[in-house]
Amino acid sequence: MDPAAYLAAHREEQLAALFALLSIPSVSTEPERAPDVRRAANHLADFMRGIGLEHVDLYETGGHPVVYGDHLHAPGRPTVLVYGHYDVQPPDPLALWDTPPFEPTVRDGKIYARGATDDKGQMMMHLFVAQGMIAQGDLQVNLRFLIEGEEEIGSANLAPFVASHKALLAADYVVVSDTSMLREGVPALCVGLRGMCGAEFTLRTAEHDLHSGLFGGAVPNAAHELASLIATLHRPDGSVAVEGFYDGVRELTPAERDQFDRLGFSDEEFLAQSGAFALFGESGRTTLERVWTRPTLEVNGMWSGFLGEGRKTVIPSEAHAKITCRLVPDQDPAKVAAALETHLRRHAPAWVQLEIATGAGDGGYLAEPGHPALAAARSALRAAYGKDPDEIRMGGSIPVVTMFRGLLGLPTLLMGFGLPDENLHAPNEHFSLENFSKGMVALWHFYQSA
Amino acid sequence: MDPAAYLAAHREEQLAALFALLSIPSVSTEPERAPDVRRAANHLADFMRGIGLEHVDLYETGGHPVVYGDHLHAPGRPTVLVYGHYDVQPPDPLALWDTPPFEPTVRDGKIYARGATDDKGQMMMHLFVAQGMIAQGDLQVNLRFLIEGEEEIGSANLAPFVASHKALLAADYVVVSDTSMLREGVPALCVGLRGMCGAEFTLRTAEHDLHSGLFGGAVPNAAHELASLIATLHRPDGSVAVEGFYDGVRELTPAERDQFDRLGFSDEEFLAQSGAFALFGESGRTTLERVWTRPTLEVNGMWSGFLGEGRKTVIPSEAHAKITCRLVPDQDPAKVAAALETHLRRHAPAWVQLEIATGAGDGGYLAEPGHPALAAARSALRAAYGKDPDEIRMGGSIPVVTMFRGLLGLPTLLMGFGLPDENLHAPNEHFSLENFSKGMVALWHFYQSA
Repeated sequence: MDPAAYLAAHREEQLAALFALLSIPSVSTEPERAPDVRRAANHLADFMRGIGLEHVDLYETGGHPVVYGDHLHAPGRPTVLVYGHYDVQPPDPLALWDTPPFEPTVRDGKIYARGATDDKGQMMMHLFVAQGMIAQGDLQVNLRFLIEGEEEIGSANLAPFVASHKALLAADYVVVSDTSMLREGVPALCVGLRGMCGAEFTLRTAEHDLHSGLFGGAVPNAAHELASLIATLHRPDGSVAVEGFYDGVRELTPAERDQFDRLGFSDEEFLAQSGAFALFGESGRTTLERVWTRPTLEVNGMWSGFLGEGRKTVIPSEAHAKITCRLVPDQDPAKVAAALETHLRRHAPAWVQLEIATGAGDGGYLAEPGHPALAAARSALRAAYGKDPDEIRMGGSIPVVTMFRGLLGLPTLLMGFGLPDENLHAPNEHFSLENFSKGMVALWHFYQSA
Repeated sequence: MDPAAYLAAHREEQLAALFALLSIPSVSTEPERAPDVRRAANHLADFMRGIGLEHVDLYETGGHPVVYGDHLHAPGRPTVLVYGHYDVQPPDPLALWDTPPFEPTVRDGKIYARGATDDKGQMMMHLFVAQGMIAQGDLQVNLRFLIEGEEEIGSANLAPFVASHKALLAADYVVVSDTSMLREGVPALCVGLRGMCGAEFTLRTAEHDLHSGLFGGAVPNAAHELASLIATLHRPDGSVAVEGFYDGVRELTPAERDQFDRLGFSDEEFLAQSGAFALFGESGRTTLERVWTRPTLEVNGMWSGFLGEGRKTVIPSEAHAKITCRLVPDQDPAKVAAALETHLRRHAPAWVQLEIATGAGDGGYLAEPGHPALAAARSALRAAYGKDPDEIRMGGSIPVVTMFRGLLGLPTLLMGFGLPDENLHAPNEHFSLENFSKGMVALWHFYQSA
């Protein structure tokens, strides 16, 4: 049976299996959701056993378990390590979802649920294809699945697991479907990623909050200090004002710039997709440069003082901020984090106490242009979509890509089927049914020719 | 009999009556305590009837009842409206009390109980003095008592009550004992209060939060915009940068400045009391000027983006801030709020959507220097304490003072007997027995000469 026909004939059972997994609120960022995260892992392992994968098991880590399974019956043929994650982002703010985040539903050709596109939907496509190829006796490649539960919290326990299970994970390359296409209808291969580093800090101006009547006007206010400090991080031209932040950042070559121009990227479409009220970034740079090739510094969250309803006339004594930086190749994450910490300490007044925690970081990534898997993926995508794939980069980070290169020496093929406006990490996350189907056809072709 | 001797001879019955009221947990902020609040009101009314007050009654409001009683048998003499409140703050955290908050006890010359100083203790002093003066046939002034049960929750129902009972409350001026002395042993008259106005706003840069990998570097970040906007509100010298903010603010006269200097105020003590890591305010101003005579603008709370545990790489689309300003006499609260709104709109970039709500405000208060009640109070305090009273101000607001001026056209005499370290609104609230006794002697003299 033709892959497309076979996959279409099994659409209902695929959706049922996917919805079952999407219904489990495996929010790894929330400690109280740990039982749900484990439930998702067990559910996934059961599914993998059910479709004929072997050596399926949960591997305990310092955090949420890793799910592994393989099918190694193609001697002499390549071994592909498929990586994905079964954990998801928190669904807040809940009020902005049109349908509940953990009650998957199809509307207008889209699957709506937290995790629909990031990454349960995309990860399950590989399992449905493996299921079909095994059932059809058509699986002529060796597959290992490594599905983790901590991608949304930084994959802290994955590197130790990979380091201590190198034999289990031996492969020729890694394939990940956790990225987006640039535009509807045109498949994409992602050849570049940004890295990340971050810091979280608490700023204190007093032992406790103070009454603004008794003390207002004569003591520092932590909210004011935080605002002033955050305001020093960028220049009015949109660039980052942290000293040393741009050290090592490569400028685009003329060839890369030409290739960017050929992608038919539209600022208007990007703006519409974003839902932002305007574009804003480093002056003198195009939007694609800004999101693919330039490092950024973003406050992801900040708070101080009274957050409840009504009025409370306090002078806040504490303020908090969470910051992450997106990094590009040749920036050193540890150096950038240290530069950020230095900047914060240098710009805080003497009376401000600062407690800064900088987490581990990741560098950026650029694919090897001549790798055979890249060629195989191009053909498979062309076959499924009838169009040459865009060669794109991503402004996001996939820390595991750096980790697989570092620990296993493997390159990673990033073949993603999401769309840029699918609200990942936001309310009303969804995944296009069209890309769900065409993507599986592409993956089937890919595994046949890889 | 001499007032001091009479009052001392009745000390035991005064303490018994006060303790009975202090034992009732009339916590107005906790809805489940409503029956206790009402019990306190009834108890108080019974006590007022018992000492010979007339027309004693509970008046229902939209919330907790008002207790009223009077003694109007001094034709041709002034009528004094005594205001106080029988409700108290919550006692939490209970674990920090040395003795239970609603089991009043005397230790080291202090009455320990929730409400001891704020305001049951101070309010009952007026009733004990009235009791003694009536018993001695010595009450030569007309007294009206207005004791409310919602002071700790903002007195929302008091203004409507006062507005609809103007005849019942007709008087020459108001007396309130709900403020503190500046230092032990020296009585005080409070002649100035700050007013207040405020604004709460929401700032939006996009329809929803955005993924910092996909969009970071190319769209605005609401947290950055909020920080930049908050940072424009003050100048580096600590002054408020809002145009028109200081319109109408009076400079201290040399005489007022001298009087401030004589108060023996210590920055070191103030800093130690505050728990702040440093003093900070408008440069070129003393601490007393800053908290008593200068308007302030404080962010009481602000937040944006992800506030949970861990990392979430969002670009926040919304940010919120709550601001209140402490105002001084001759500032117009509505104008200051409007100036703040104008400032926020002027300093926000075009792509930022701002939703601003400014609430009702209160002007500051300065006593009329030549008012006869002020002179009578000075003499009475001198007679009781053997010392001239400090003429002080308060950085906080007492909204009823503005309300009495607005609705009844009456000035308010603020003659308080608390001390600054008596833990009002905190565990181990207490009230000095010395000020309880001397204060009653002062009130007796005051009512004789008023």
